[in-house]
Amino acid sequence: MKRNLLLTPGPTQIPPEICAALGRPIIHHRTPQFQENLKEAVEGLKHVFQTKNDIYLLTSSGTGAMEAAVCNLLSPGDKAITVEGGKFGERWSELCRSYGVEPDVIKVTWGKAVDPARIKKILDTHKDIKAVFITQSETSTGVTTDVEAVARVVRDTNAVLVVDAVSGLGVIDLQMDNWGVDVVVSASHKGFMLPPGLAFISVSAKAFKLVETSKSPRYYFDLRKSKEAMADVDTPFTPAIGIVIALNESLRRIKQEGLQNLFACYARLASGTREAAKALGLSIFPDESCLSNVLTAVKLPAEVDGNKVVKIMRDTYGISVAGGQDTLKGKIIRIAHMGCVDEYDILTGIACLEKVLLKLGHKFTPGVGIAAAQKVFIT
Amino acid sequence: MKRNLLLTPGPTQIPPEICAALGRPIIHHRTPQFQENLKEAVEGLKHVFQTKNDIYLLTSSGTGAMEAAVCNLLSPGDKAITVEGGKFGERWSELCRSYGVEPDVIKVTWGKAVDPARIKKILDTHKDIKAVFITQSETSTGVTTDVEAVARVVRDTNAVLVVDAVSGLGVIDLQMDNWGVDVVVSASHKGFMLPPGLAFISVSAKAFKLVETSKSPRYYFDLRKSKEAMADVDTPFTPAIGIVIALNESLRRIKQEGLQNLFACYARLASGTREAAKALGLSIFPDESCLSNVLTAVKLPAEVDGNKVVKIMRDTYGISVAGGQDTLKGKIIRIAHMGCVDEYDILTGIACLEKVLLKLGHKFTPGVGIAAAQKVFIT
Repeated sequence: MKRNLLLTPGPTQIPPEICAALGRPIIHHRTPQFQENLKEAVEGLKHVFQTKNDIYLLTSSGTGAMEAAVCNLLSPGDKAITVEGGKFGERWSELCRSYGVEPDVIKVTWGKAVDPARIKKILDTHKDIKAVFITQSETSTGVTTDVEAVARVVRDTNAVLVVDAVSGLGVIDLQMDNWGVDVVVSASHKGFMLPPGLAFISVSAKAFKLVETSKSPRYYFDLRKSKEAMADVDTPFTPAIGIVIALNESLRRIKQEGLQNLFACYARLASGTREAAKALGLSIFPDESCLSNVLTAVKLPAEVDGNKVVKIMRDTYGISVAGGQDTLKGKIIRIAHMGCVDEYDILTGIACLEKVLLKLGHKFTPGVGIAAAQKVFIT
Repeated sequence: MKRNLLLTPGPTQIPPEICAALGRPIIHHRTPQFQENLKEAVEGLKHVFQTKNDIYLLTSSGTGAMEAAVCNLLSPGDKAITVEGGKFGERWSELCRSYGVEPDVIKVTWGKAVDPARIKKILDTHKDIKAVFITQSETSTGVTTDVEAVARVVRDTNAVLVVDAVSGLGVIDLQMDNWGVDVVVSASHKGFMLPPGLAFISVSAKAFKLVETSKSPRYYFDLRKSKEAMADVDTPFTPAIGIVIALNESLRRIKQEGLQNLFACYARLASGTREAAKALGLSIFPDESCLSNVLTAVKLPAEVDGNKVVKIMRDTYGISVAGGQDTLKGKIIRIAHMGCVDEYDILTGIACLEKVLLKLGHKFTPGVGIAAAQKVFIT
């Protein structure tokens, strides 16, 4: 019988208990019963976002919440900074342009992280910049941004800092309030172990002032409507009821494990994955200095086609990892360690990778990959 | 043990088989496995929309698809007609205004339907009107619009006809191609018996020309992106995977029953509900001429508080119906007959209503309501 193991950077595995919650009979959303669920969800999210700010639920994928950030904070002609070091950084720029904002783009080589000093330099000379958009963990490259350091250069300026934490929240640390981040967006199908279809956005008081003055057209993603509804423990439009209810299962699990323990666990999984790759004679795509613990991007030898690796692992063995995007197509594979995943899952993934690499002609002693990972897991 | 019966106009009951599908382990969306699901879903939706036009899936509630229609078809300063005879007709006007379009609003008394001649009159004198927005079944009042008749006055003009069929699709007839409707929007949690979180929009070639020229800002709901992705059997952003997979269960059920049989069945349920209400000495809120088979809005006697009826039915007996909105608050209750509901559910709902009405002092012979409904169901 074939496995169905997802080591992809979203969607991630859904634990059986959460699958069961998703299969429950539905309840109506405009009832005290649902309100209890919504209230509990928002409280639990605040714990994961490490914030006292308001959090709004949007029925959309993560991109919907990113669009909400852009159209609620900026008006046509406004100035903003974006950081492009991968597909999701580019998305911020595309979103800005869609709303008549030509961003000041900081280009970063794929595999490297932005130097906060570059952001500071622009902010120092352009006092009219309203927002800085960054990506906590860039899923296309496996790079993590030092959000705390960026927050340090943004928080005392007029600009607000907006962080795409779609893939990183609950996986790596993000202390929204302590670090002074203004807007954080995330989604259900990564660290939260849920199906895609629900997104989250948390907004500081400083950022909400921009929401109140933005002239960009918006309706479904209008956070003024969200705020008004939330005052009555409600959502402005019919929410993804099933996912909200299942979210509480996920939040209970996260609370029970403890955020810091989870971060440590994912760090160990990431470390084991990297050691395994190295033992197999492969190198890690991103710079040592900015490795994300959310996923590991592994460079493949020139003679091995990454698309084939992904396809064989998935279609022959039922184990899903992601390939590379754009210029990285065929050159890397990405193994996620987020959400419901443990060391045995990682060992399974690496064991399967070993099998496929050998089949495709890459030479190494079978077992060295899993042994190297196990060495990390055992200490 | 308390029932959990939803006779609300969205969300509606989810059949156990679909609940089970929602609880299945997740699969990744960028795989041949999911593509098969997506392809099947679009084909099945075309059957229900009665169209050969493209259909795009949006991960949002129905309002998201309504916004997609407005921002993809219209540019700021464009002209459009909206019809306001209830909350959802008003939503079209609000959406237009959000995008810089001041609509020509046709006001219709709540409980009545628009006379297509009023639309024709405006179109005859305003050749620059780009779109006419109507509501197939107005959920706030229980009124149905004669979409076919409206299409007759719109289809040979420059304007496109956009129909909010969020609550009516699959419940009452809508022949998109035969009648010449340009854009139809719907959502997962009404006739499709699924949780909220997935919306659908079908666009004719005539309407897609407007999509290509609209200057309104948009990204997540940009139908140009949807069309491009759909050419590769893909969605531009991570879709609500779980609901798409469950949608195929729903579409198979709908196909098996047969659309015409379903329409006839819901018509019988609506008729039974109306007869029951009359037997209980209550009247039906909308005009005889425009009764929707999607839901029945029942006027309550002045001495009975509709909010109390809804609350007691739900909290004491576990049976959910909807109350009135805006000026109808407390004055009507709304009983839906859409999605997964049969005559025994309606009898249950009416039996419970009888109980609660008696408790609240309304006088009638117990059993006359269910007997009147049963008389309809038995013939």
